[in-house]
Amino acid sequence: MDSDNLSSTTAGKPIRCRAAIARVPGEPLVIEEILVDPPSSHEVRIRIICTGLCYSDITFWKMKDFPAVFPRILGHEAIGVESVGENVNEVAEGDIVIPYFLADCSECVDCKSKKSNLCSKFPFKVSPWMARSETSRFTDLKGQTLHHFLFVSSFSEYTVVDIANMVKIDPEIPPNRACLLSCGVSTGVGAAWRTANVEAGSTVVIFGLGSIGLAVAEGARLCGATRIIGVDVIPEKFEIGKKFGVTEFVNAKSCGDKSVSQVINEMTDGGADYCFECVGSSSLVQEAYACCRKGWGKTIVLGVDKPGAQVTLSSFDVLHSGKILIGSLFGGLKAKTDIPILLKRYMDKELQLDEFVTHEMKFEDINKAFDLLIQGKCLRCVIWMDE
Amino acid sequence: MDSDNLSSTTAGKPIRCRAAIARVPGEPLVIEEILVDPPSSHEVRIRIICTGLCYSDITFWKMKDFPAVFPRILGHEAIGVESVGENVNEVAEGDIVIPYFLADCSECVDCKSKKSNLCSKFPFKVSPWMARSETSRFTDLKGQTLHHFLFVSSFSEYTVVDIANMVKIDPEIPPNRACLLSCGVSTGVGAAWRTANVEAGSTVVIFGLGSIGLAVAEGARLCGATRIIGVDVIPEKFEIGKKFGVTEFVNAKSCGDKSVSQVINEMTDGGADYCFECVGSSSLVQEAYACCRKGWGKTIVLGVDKPGAQVTLSSFDVLHSGKILIGSLFGGLKAKTDIPILLKRYMDKELQLDEFVTHEMKFEDINKAFDLLIQGKCLRCVIWMDE
Ligand SMILES: [Zn+2]
Ligand SMILES: [Zn+2]
Ligand SMILES: [Zn+2]
Ligand SMILES: [Zn+2]
Repeated sequence: MDSDNLSSTTAGKPIRCRAAIARVPGEPLVIEEILVDPPSSHEVRIRIICTGLCYSDITFWKMKDFPAVFPRILGHEAIGVESVGENVNEVAEGDIVIPYFLADCSECVDCKSKKSNLCSKFPFKVSPWMARSETSRFTDLKGQTLHHFLFVSSFSEYTVVDIANMVKIDPEIPPNRACLLSCGVSTGVGAAWRTANVEAGSTVVIFGLGSIGLAVAEGARLCGATRIIGVDVIPEKFEIGKKFGVTEFVNAKSCGDKSVSQVINEMTDGGADYCFECVGSSSLVQEAYACCRKGWGKTIVLGVDKPGAQVTLSSFDVLHSGKILIGSLFGGLKAKTDIPILLKRYMDKELQLDEFVTHEMKFEDINKAFDLLIQGKCLRCVIWMDE
Repeated sequence: MDSDNLSSTTAGKPIRCRAAIARVPGEPLVIEEILVDPPSSHEVRIRIICTGLCYSDITFWKMKDFPAVFPRILGHEAIGVESVGENVNEVAEGDIVIPYFLADCSECVDCKSKKSNLCSKFPFKVSPWMARSETSRFTDLKGQTLHHFLFVSSFSEYTVVDIANMVKIDPEIPPNRACLLSCGVSTGVGAAWRTANVEAGSTVVIFGLGSIGLAVAEGARLCGATRIIGVDVIPEKFEIGKKFGVTEFVNAKSCGDKSVSQVINEMTDGGADYCFECVGSSSLVQEAYACCRKGWGKTIVLGVDKPGAQVTLSSFDVLHSGKILIGSLFGGLKAKTDIPILLKRYMDKELQLDEFVTHEMKFEDINKAFDLLIQGKCLRCVIWMDE
């Protein structure tokens, strides 16, 4: 699909374009031509410029049961814009937007409050549909409905996104950097900046130095943390972590008789000010809680554990420690306000984004990007749709 | 013991006086004459004017195993002062002080920090000794050592307390009101004021309308909460609660098919801003967490559960709710600073204390006070030592 497929000629009509479709759990995506309906009221049809690949895409690609559904267009880190439906004033054709999975409707009590980023009008769920209408905008050429993913579905040359799930950004920002703010980097940086509100001079522990954990480090570095201790089972992660401000490393497999929390309590003389769990393991939440400082330490949960998993803490410790436990979805960011702030900080050379992009590929090679991420060989792989 | 037993004649010498001794778990206290050693360095010997009775006294009176020890002088809500050991500059003979169980040493990183009330130098524990020396100041007339309780042991005409466990107060304040700040009322009011920092206009839920829960209500009322919902199994508690600002009541035994959290989520259209668990039940912590508002709701744990009890939360909820879980010991108060502030607010007729004192008694009748509290017939019973 050429970029000269101007919206003036396609407005109100379905667009035929290529998409990478997940048809069978765990099997390679199939690039096919599909039809993308025009946007309904409060929706925008987006021409994807480039898209990232996030671990949630892998999770819902491999998953066999509900909330996984097939066929589906995965992908939720992206950038672009094409045509605009009715009742959309925020963006116009030609604007550059970032879609995101966690709605910011601007109208409900949560979206109006500074304290919450969890929209009440369009609550977070792994829905197979558009948020507002609970319908799909995708069909394949045989007429079969294709499902949406996280209100974005960016593994397609065109997608349709609700106005609550997108924000207009400065078009000067390189798209292969801006798209990172669509999910993973925002989640990590935001967790340090917004959810934890890391104080300058403080000590931070990060369990899991994948992309999210490294983004937490970057956020903590931006906030002025003095010590940023990474915990992982792969020692090479320390070298990568140093680029994002990680100052010390604990190899969770080399703690001998001690638990990770014991090691960290010794290193920090009683615990860290902030501990971030980025792996998605309830037992690591316990470890994180155990090595955050009594009196004021915060444990911030970012990792997604298995359905039904439980976080168990000693009742005595909860009462007597003064510690705080809090979860962070999308880093506690209010997307419409905070994504532009973070992008400005990138343009001002404060926030590092370049270092997250370890690979770039053509759309045709999307399955190679899946392989790289599964093998742990990349942080972020940017997939260009028009190359 | 007469009040004209002036410290000038007893300084440096043991004092013989009466104490109510817990010798056998669950059996009535025995009032006997005992010897109270003079204060060591950093200690003060206190002539108790009056003492309250708190549920922790009952707990450690009934408890058969460690950390219960016998014989012991219980009691930890009190007021008084007599003679002063070396290295004590804060108080002089004749000053009126309030002792308290949670040390505030003024020197350690926690006591110097605004963020913590958990002293590192003298950490909270249910110790049978003085905090600094790990020795006792009490012996009975047969020479047997009597154990301390919570660094206070106020069921005695004289006790010895570390300077870290006491604060000088305005002598104009009636002692049978001031002594309430020594434990229970501070714990509840502080949890709303300091730990939760309840915002004006907010909605508060309190699980358990005993003295602590009512003190939470009083604290929330002082902070300007608009709705204060009490939860208890005794409907009469609503009438008592109204005196302390409780505006609505949920009888946990009359929720039909619904859980308490379901009822409260309906009443509040999605949950309260702050939920306080004052009963000491991990399952109620779950209920409190379930009915605090997504996005910003705080669950504050005050209740003391059984040793080994665990708080279990759904990992999914922790990640996706944005809710905060935090424990509150001594209401998050920094004793030396905050007890005088609260007493000033009492003198300024802002903080209500009178309503907490439902009974007053002579020292000889201390076992009747135990009975009343066990039967749930009193909020606070003040025991006067010299009547
Ligand atoms: Zn993602
Ligand atoms: Zn909203
Ligand atoms: Zn008490
Ligand atoms: Zn201290």
